[in-house]
Amino acid sequence: MVSERQLIDYIKGAAGKVPERVEGIGDDCAVFGCREGCKQLVSVDTLVEGVHFDLTWHGPRELGHKAAAVNISDIAAMGGKPCFALLSMALPARLDFAWLTAFTEGFTAELKEYGVVLVGGDTVASPAGLLLSVTIIGEAEEGRILYRSGAGVDDVIMVSGSLGDAALGLKLCREGRQASWPQLTAAHLTPRPEVALGRHLAAAGSGVTAMLDMSDGLATDLAHMCAASGLGARINADWLPISVSARQAALDLEIDVLDSALGGGEDYRLLFTCPAAAEEDLRREVKAVLKRQIFRIGKMIPGCGVLLCGRDGERDVSFQGYEHLTR
Amino acid sequence: MVSERQLIDYIKGAAGKVPERVEGIGDDCAVFGCREGCKQLVSVDTLVEGVHFDLTWHGPRELGHKAAAVNISDIAAMGGKPCFALLSMALPARLDFAWLTAFTEGFTAELKEYGVVLVGGDTVASPAGLLLSVTIIGEAEEGRILYRSGAGVDDVIMVSGSLGDAALGLKLCREGRQASWPQLTAAHLTPRPEVALGRHLAAAGSGVTAMLDMSDGLATDLAHMCAASGLGARINADWLPISVSARQAALDLEIDVLDSALGGGEDYRLLFTCPAAAEEDLRREVKAVLKRQIFRIGKMIPGCGVLLCGRDGERDVSFQGYEHLTR
Repeated sequence: MVSERQLIDYIKGAAGKVPERVEGIGDDCAVFGCREGCKQLVSVDTLVEGVHFDLTWHGPRELGHKAAAVNISDIAAMGGKPCFALLSMALPARLDFAWLTAFTEGFTAELKEYGVVLVGGDTVASPAGLLLSVTIIGEAEEGRILYRSGAGVDDVIMVSGSLGDAALGLKLCREGRQASWPQLTAAHLTPRPEVALGRHLAAAGSGVTAMLDMSDGLATDLAHMCAASGLGARINADWLPISVSARQAALDLEIDVLDSALGGGEDYRLLFTCPAAAEEDLRREVKAVLKRQIFRIGKMIPGCGVLLCGRDGERDVSFQGYEHLTR
Repeated sequence: MVSERQLIDYIKGAAGKVPERVEGIGDDCAVFGCREGCKQLVSVDTLVEGVHFDLTWHGPRELGHKAAAVNISDIAAMGGKPCFALLSMALPARLDFAWLTAFTEGFTAELKEYGVVLVGGDTVASPAGLLLSVTIIGEAEEGRILYRSGAGVDDVIMVSGSLGDAALGLKLCREGRQASWPQLTAAHLTPRPEVALGRHLAAAGSGVTAMLDMSDGLATDLAHMCAASGLGARINADWLPISVSARQAALDLEIDVLDSALGGGEDYRLLFTCPAAAEEDLRREVKAVLKRQIFRIGKMIPGCGVLLCGRDGERDVSFQGYEHLTR
C-alpha cells in the first residue's frame, strides 16, 4: 500500500498548476480569495467506522460532536472563523432513527456553539460501516491567515495544551475503562476545537509565524510544518505538556506516555511558532484574554526533520505519528 | 430504516434557523453571498462502492471521471460555474498505486475540462469498500441562479436529453455486456455534466423558472421540483425522450424502457421549466448556440405529485425513482 504522503504528492502533481488566487494546498485548509480583503478557507475530513471511531464506545451524540469539532479545528488551525458546514453520511442499515437523531443533535449543537450553519450534504447507503465526511467553510481577513510554511529559524515551537490525552483516552475505551480517567476519554470522544485561540494567534501583531492543528500526533504534524517551512525542529522531551491523568493512565496501561504524546494523534491542539522575542508577550496576552496557558516545546533549526532531545540523547522522530494508509 | 427524505427533514429541523444570506438548502447546492453581485454554490456527493459503482466493471479512469462529473453536475443544475473541488477518499488496502494514479488522472482530467481546480481533500483507510466524497464549489451572478422551487402553474417541463440510458447501461454492465450498446454503458460509466447548457438556461431573459439535474430518476427528481414549487406535474409517456439504443437494449433485457426512463437515475440531464410562451425561443436559441435539442415532457399543474399520462390512462409516479436508504 502506498503511503498517504506519496499519494497526496502524486495527486498534487496530477492536479496541475494552481491559479494564483488559490493558496494553502497541503495546509489544513485551502485558501482562496472571496472578496476584497477577505479569504475563504475550505477543508474536508472523513471519519470511518473501525478506523476513526468505534460505535461500541462512541455514542451517537459524542460522535456528532466530534465530526463537527475535528472539521472546525481545521479552520481554527489557520486562524479562521468557521461559517458553513456540509455533512455527507454513508449509513449502514443497522443504524436506527433514534441513533441518527442523537447523532444529529450532537453534530448541530457543536456547529451552533461555533456559529456554524449546516447548509447541505447528502445521505447514501453504506453496505459496510458508517462514514462521515464533513466539509467546512470559513473566512479570514487577508493577511491574518497562518500557514504551516511560515516558521523561521530559531522560532520557538509552542503547543496550546496537553499532548497524548486523546490517544490514551482511546486506549481506555478499547479496554472498557472509560470511567477511569474521564478527562482522557473525553479528549478522544469529544475534542474541542481551538477557534478563539486560533483567531487570537492569527491576529495582527501576535508575532506567530506558522500554525496547524495536531491530528496525527506531534511527531508527524511538526514534521509537516518542518517540511513546509524548509527547516528542522528540535523538541525537548521534558518540555512536552503531559497531563497528570495521562501519566497515571500510561503507567497503569503500561505504555510509554512519551509515545502517546508524540505519536498518538487526535489531540487537536494548536501547534505554532513565533520568534523567541515575541514569546513572553504572547504567553501573557493569551493568559490575560483567554485564560489559557501555552507551552514552549522546542525551536526551529536549520536542516530538516524533527529531533527529540531526551535524557538518553537525541533521536529523529519525524513522521512517527499516525499514518492513515499503511498502518 | 428511515427514508432519505425523512432523515433530511429531521436534520434540517435540528440545524435550526438558517441565516438570510444562505439559500438553496434542499436544492442541488447551498447558495450564499460571497461578494457584491456574486453568489457561491457548494455541494457534496459521496459515491460508495457496491452502491454507486462496482469496480469489476468501473475502471479507475472512468470512475475518476464520474466522481468529478456528478459533482460538477450539481453546479450546472443551478446555472453556476464550477470553480474548486475537494476530494476525500476512503481507500481499501487492495487498491494499488497503478489503480490510484489512473483514478486520479480521470478525476483531474474531468475537472480540467470544466476549469475546476482541485484545492484539497483527504485520504483515509477504509476497512471495507472504496468511498469517494467530492465537494464542489462554484459561483454565479446574483439573480442568475435557478432553484427547484421556481416553477409556475402551466409552465412547460423540459429535459435536456434522453432518459434511462444510464440505468440501462448499468444493467448491461451487470450482465457483462458493456460492448453491446456502448452509448448506454458510457452514460453510466462516464456521465457528462451540462455546464454550458445550465449557464445558458440561467442567463437573463431565458425565461427558465426552475431547474435541477436528474440523479435519482425523473419520477423522483420531478417530484422534488413539484414539492419545492408547491405544484403538481403532468408528464406524457409518449413525449419522454428515449434513445433508440435504450429501446433496443430494454427489449433485449426484457425490461420496460419506461421504468428505466422514470426511475433509473444517474442520467444527469437537466430538468427545467419555463412559461409556454418562452419555449419556442428557448428551443431555437439552445439549438443555435449550443447545437443541442431540448425536449418538452409535460407541464406544471395545480396540486401535488407527478402524474404520468400513458395510453392506459393516468397514474401517480411521484418518488418512484432511486431511494438511497430504503431500497
